[in-house]
Order: sequence, then structure tokens, then C-alpha cells
Amino acid sequence: MTQSNDLVLERTLDAPRNLVWKAWTDPNLLKQWFAPKPYEISELEMDLSPGGIFRIRMVGPDGFDTGHGSPGCVLDVVDGEKLVWTSALGPQYRPAELGEGCESFPMTAVVTFADAGDGKTLYRAVALHRNAADRDMHEKMGFDEGWGTCAGQLEELAQGLAANA
Amino acid sequence: MTQSNDLVLERTLDAPRNLVWKAWTDPNLLKQWFAPKPYEISELEMDLSPGGIFRIRMVGPDGFDTGHGSPGCVLDVVDGEKLVWTSALGPQYRPAELGEGCESFPMTAVVTFADAGDGKTLYRAVALHRNAADRDMHEKMGFDEGWGTCAGQLEELAQGLAANA
Repeated sequence: MTQSNDLVLERTLDAPRNLVWKAWTDPNLLKQWFAPKPYEISELEMDLSPGGIFRIRMVGPDGFDTGHGSPGCVLDVVDGEKLVWTSALGPQYRPAELGEGCESFPMTAVVTFADAGDGKTLYRAVALHRNAADRDMHEKMGFDEGWGTCAGQLEELAQGLAANA
Repeated sequence: MTQSNDLVLERTLDAPRNLVWKAWTDPNLLKQWFAPKPYEISELEMDLSPGGIFRIRMVGPDGFDTGHGSPGCVLDVVDGEKLVWTSALGPQYRPAELGEGCESFPMTAVVTFADAGDGKTLYRAVALHRNAADRDMHEKMGFDEGWGTCAGQLEELAQGLAANA
């Protein structure tokens, strides 16, 4: 169920669910697609268990640092189906300090993976916010384009895994 | 593991662990001890599953409302052993708006229950904060006295359950 304070990205990816899941949950693979190019992941810490750390730092090609370096917290993991994490908490559920820029508001991400037939995957990422102002800020920062570009990169990477399987 | 931004209440309660757990997790029992008398619980919503609501509102004898009405989120439940919830998130993990007074800073509570021998229970409540300023504010609001008084009320209630068992 989504509310008006959510942002939603939904794509049918032309790759099977197990490989999309693998590309999401293997840190070495996640690093290759999670930043919308030409942005890159400079640091990544991910412990996919409830209370575990989720920390990703991105840098732009000109050295621009997005500040995505604050540790978030993994909340829920359903193997092959669902990932939930938040920036409102840090590892082991400690309330997090807000940062600047992309980290100036807390958000929770709910990512789900479902079979879409013909070896395709329905990929859905929902960003939950406190209020409409935070949602609007996130939207203006380029949620649709950013997550959309990354979904394309994720699809491509997962397809490559299939070819190598 | 605790950090300098935590507040800790630890008590050995003279009641068996299963009854202390019951007094904590049955809403009708929780209502009877969770507010330090003469404060009272005026509203309570509790769904002890990850993502579930944890909302408690307290009022004073003079009608003073503590503002404890914002819905928090249950994060982790280990039957008979551990409860974790936070005010940094609302139900289903949506980042929460901060309120006033006791709700002006987010906190996460980690409550654990362990056998202490002779039918006693080691009861431990740790409040995790973002920083030292929040911890100090919580301390000045009377964390030790509040949680300490409630631990005594919890013990008394659990002892009554034993007598009725």
C-alpha cells in the first residue's frame, strides 16, 4: 500500500528474478549498478540482516561527493522477494543523525521482486517519507531519473549474469 | 553493547521470566504498569511483529498530557527474550515526524529478559539516542526514575500473576 508521501519506481526487467536478486544482494555486483552513471559507488557496507548496516557513498565524475555516506539500517529481508532499509536509523537500530543534501531527510526504501512471466521480473522500489515536503525534495533531487537509470543498469547486469550462467 | 549515547535501566525482578514477559506483551497488563504512577496510559496500540505499531499515550493525574501519542514501530521480537521498538519510525517503517516534549527526539528501546536464578528475572531496558544532547535531555526528563518506578510496578504485577497461576 502506498501513500501520498511515497515515491514509486516500477519496472518490468527482462531478467529472471533470481539473477535480479543476486545483482542486488551481492555487494560486488550492487556496486556496479546502484549509482546512476556517471556517478560511482566509492564505499559500500551492507549486512543483509535486520539491524545490519546499509551504507553507500556515491561520487560524481568531477569528484562531487553526494554525501551518501551515513550508515543506514536494514529492517527486513525476505529471500528473493523483499528488502527494506532506512536512513532514519543506523546499524543496530540507533536513531540516525540527519546529514546534508540527499541525507537531509530520512527515508525508508521498500524494494520488492516478483516473477513477471517469460523470465522477467517485476521490480518495485518505494521510498517512504515523513511528509509531502520530504517527498517533494526527493522528487526534485531526481528520484525518478536516478532510480530509473539504475533499474536499467540492474537489468543489464542481471542479463549478463544469465549469459554467464 | 552500550555506548555513551545510551541510557540503561537494569533490575533483577523477583518474578519468573515468563510472567514478566507476559506482563510486558499483553496489552491489558502493560497498561497497568507501563506509566509511572500517578501517570496513566490513556491509549495503547501494540502489534508485536516487525513493522507493527507501538503507540502509547500517557496522561498525568491533573490531565497533563505527555504527548506520548505518536505511533512508533516494532523492530525485533524474540519470544520471551527481547523487544525492540523505535520512535524514529512509524508503523510499516515510515520515517516518523518528531513531536514535542518527550517526542522531540527519536529513540530506540531495547528491552531484554534473562533468567536470573531462583525464579528471578534480569530485566534490562536500554534507550539508544542519536547523540549526547538527546541522551542528556532524556535523562533530565527522568529516564532513571520513570523506568525505575515502572520496573517496580512490572515486578509487582508479575508477582500477582504468579499468585494467580
